[in-house]
Amino acid sequence: MKTRFVVFEGVEGSGKSTQVQMLAATLAARGEDVVTTFEPGATKSGAVIRELLLDMPLSLTPMTEMFLFCADRTQHVHEVVRPALDAGKTVLSDRYELSTVVYQGYASAVGVDLAERLNDLATGGLHPDLTVVLDLDPAVGLNRNGAHERRDQIERRTLEFHQRVRRGFLWWAERHPETCLVLDALQPPEVLHEQVLQRLGLGGAEEAGEGGL
Amino acid sequence: MKTRFVVFEGVEGSGKSTQVQMLAATLAARGEDVVTTFEPGATKSGAVIRELLLDMPLSLTPMTEMFLFCADRTQHVHEVVRPALDAGKTVLSDRYELSTVVYQGYASAVGVDLAERLNDLATGGLHPDLTVVLDLDPAVGLNRNGAHERRDQIERRTLEFHQRVRRGFLWWAERHPETCLVLDALQPPEVLHEQVLQRLGLGGAEEAGEGGL
Repeated sequence: MKTRFVVFEGVEGSGKSTQVQMLAATLAARGEDVVTTFEPGATKSGAVIRELLLDMPLSLTPMTEMFLFCADRTQHVHEVVRPALDAGKTVLSDRYELSTVVYQGYASAVGVDLAERLNDLATGGLHPDLTVVLDLDPAVGLNRNGAHERRDQIERRTLEFHQRVRRGFLWWAERHPETCLVLDALQPPEVLHEQVLQRLGLGGAEEAGEGGL
Repeated sequence: MKTRFVVFEGVEGSGKSTQVQMLAATLAARGEDVVTTFEPGATKSGAVIRELLLDMPLSLTPMTEMFLFCADRTQHVHEVVRPALDAGKTVLSDRYELSTVVYQGYASAVGVDLAERLNDLATGGLHPDLTVVLDLDPAVGLNRNGAHERRDQIERRTLEFHQRVRRGFLWWAERHPETCLVLDALQPPEVLHEQVLQRLGLGGAEEAGEGGL
């Protein structure tokens, strides 16, 4: 069975975790050994870093944020992603390196080039086989995620920021069609799931054999 | 009055914080506005990062450590060092960028070149006017700092690691004589303090006028 590393990306409220769970269930039903994970915060140190980034009102500089996301990612690759892939498992992640390219690079002051260089250090060059971008108007996504008081430090940023984030995802996807699939996240979850399966070569109710990217 | 940024570096137990306090007292007595600080952990986010780095048994990778020290340093420069210097104050820090070059770069797997490049991103190019290296056999310094059970995650590393750290400090100081002063930390604190004042052009009991680096 082919090792797979599939990442779901998109603005807040675009349905990433739902798609991770649906794909995990389908692949598991087909007999694959699947690990689901997320960023930031999937390791013990990452959970502390996630609090720093999202839950504490600290006025971190863009570079401080950048370094913290990279610290989380390095440890995540080391403890979770790489060992699972090495063991022949399929890894599905809710966010990965593209979030940093877009949030800290494209939409913030750090810039895309530097974000990509620091990502390469953080991941050791481990890139996903497929990144699914769930494209959505951030005004819709933020409403899905609930009242302003419950939003984290990044969700609370201006709508203009989140619109830059959306444009960043689309800009990047256009440059990487071979490893990136953009889906309209206003569609029902089941439809999105079917489109993901199609891209993975696993689509169709009858088809249950081997598939490739 | 000339703005000054002086950093004290050295292995654990080499007397850095004592020298910071002695120099701060002398400069304050001469009428300077002095800020004393330290790394890691001088900001609110830094205090959490310091816990991650030193107090929690997390098996962080060398790159994770590197990114966390850089995150701490970026925020430290932004919140503490740069504002104080901009306000014309003198800043004395217990550790700064050289610690990362030596501990994470020279003595660990990350390497000096990468450590220096990441430091430049973290500091925005803000280098100390003078770095005082308190040179000491790490076996002596670690004993000064007390029993093994009370040591932090970095102090607990092998003596061989701390000996590489000592060599790293000396190696770097030899390459940067114009901004670096190496002192034998076995000397009494008062003697070391006088040597620091001499280098700053403030030495001698009678002399109390303006001095330069």
